[in-house]
Amino acid sequence: MKEVTMQYKLSYFDVMGLGEPIRFLLSYGGAKFEDIRIDREQWGKFKPATPFGQMPILEFDGKVYSQTLPICRYLAKKYNLNGKTDLDDLQIDAIANALHDLRKQVALFYRSTDPNEKAKRKEEVLTTTLPFYLKKLEELAHNNGGYLHGGQLSYADLFFVAISDSINNACELDIGENNPNLKSLREKVLAIPKIKEWVQKRPKLEF
Amino acid sequence: MKEVTMQYKLSYFDVMGLGEPIRFLLSYGGAKFEDIRIDREQWGKFKPATPFGQMPILEFDGKVYSQTLPICRYLAKKYNLNGKTDLDDLQIDAIANALHDLRKQVALFYRSTDPNEKAKRKEEVLTTTLPFYLKKLEELAHNNGGYLHGGQLSYADLFFVAISDSINNACELDIGENNPNLKSLREKVLAIPKIKEWVQKRPKLEF
Repeated sequence: MKEVTMQYKLSYFDVMGLGEPIRFLLSYGGAKFEDIRIDREQWGKFKPATPFGQMPILEFDGKVYSQTLPICRYLAKKYNLNGKTDLDDLQIDAIANALHDLRKQVALFYRSTDPNEKAKRKEEVLTTTLPFYLKKLEELAHNNGGYLHGGQLSYADLFFVAISDSINNACELDIGENNPNLKSLREKVLAIPKIKEWVQKRPKLEF
Repeated sequence: MKEVTMQYKLSYFDVMGLGEPIRFLLSYGGAKFEDIRIDREQWGKFKPATPFGQMPILEFDGKVYSQTLPICRYLAKKYNLNGKTDLDDLQIDAIANALHDLRKQVALFYRSTDPNEKAKRKEEVLTTTLPFYLKKLEELAHNNGGYLHGGQLSYADLFFVAISDSINNACELDIGENNPNLKSLREKVLAIPKIKEWVQKRPKLEF
């Protein structure tokens, strides 16, 4: 699992956001990575040169790779956090994609600068979107031995925990409160030594 | 490539949308599939039972799978439309994800019911988003022997062609017009006999 020869460069805004699942995965894998934080002004100059005008991007071996979920999946395979079969991969990928969708809905209200739109979107997330997803996720964790799929740790579990602080902070709640299996999953992932180490040293941010 | 024993059931709204890349893949693989079209009223009843409250969903072997991109990736592997290496997969996945993002931006204005918001979003797509993506995609096709990655057909190519009619119709343009490599890629994919057959028999829809 140890990587000492390869240097990854992760570029993203100075937030947890979509960078955090990748940071969790690289940390889990014991990879050395440069955790580059880009401000809005730098981003304007930097954006046209990226593969599709979006961050995060991950650079290694002289190449630039984009898109959060594909990057996570690539690292997951490298660190044995993917599925045993193609059908397992399909299910793990689908959970990670669903978590990505959920986080997007939270980010949309959190980042909204129009007070009316922000309030409307937040209300929708708090009363409908989030409860729906949490019910599904809690069921998965309940039915899969405390993990989101297949009774063992996958990158979907790391993705869930990596975005959970942003969701808790933006929604001003604790998603583990009425979801004992999700609470316990979070504790398990945060207790993994390399993840624990990362969470202790990472910048302290709200989202 | 031929599948006669397995029956897939694809459920989606009666549009091309995110269902079309999956329909292209199933057709390419010669799979028999039930192409179920769900109206808004049916969807309200059906939604809570789906994995994450979204369509498309694909059912086979008595199980229900969700999320467009993971489903496409699963079928791609089955039909040899994935990459040769994990790094190829990362790049093909990233292109498909980027195409998914682009389509989403087009759908957001196309589906908008607020005339001001619709006009604003459409303007943004036509003047900024779409030209940016097309430039990147045309470069990829130019640099990869007429395909989006690796000099050979991948599911990213099928994804591109499957969403191209929706984009052309919503944006009232032809994305191949100033992009000869994308134009030729579209022609190549549409000339694949099983894809051609699907496109001839599919419902004729605008989006």
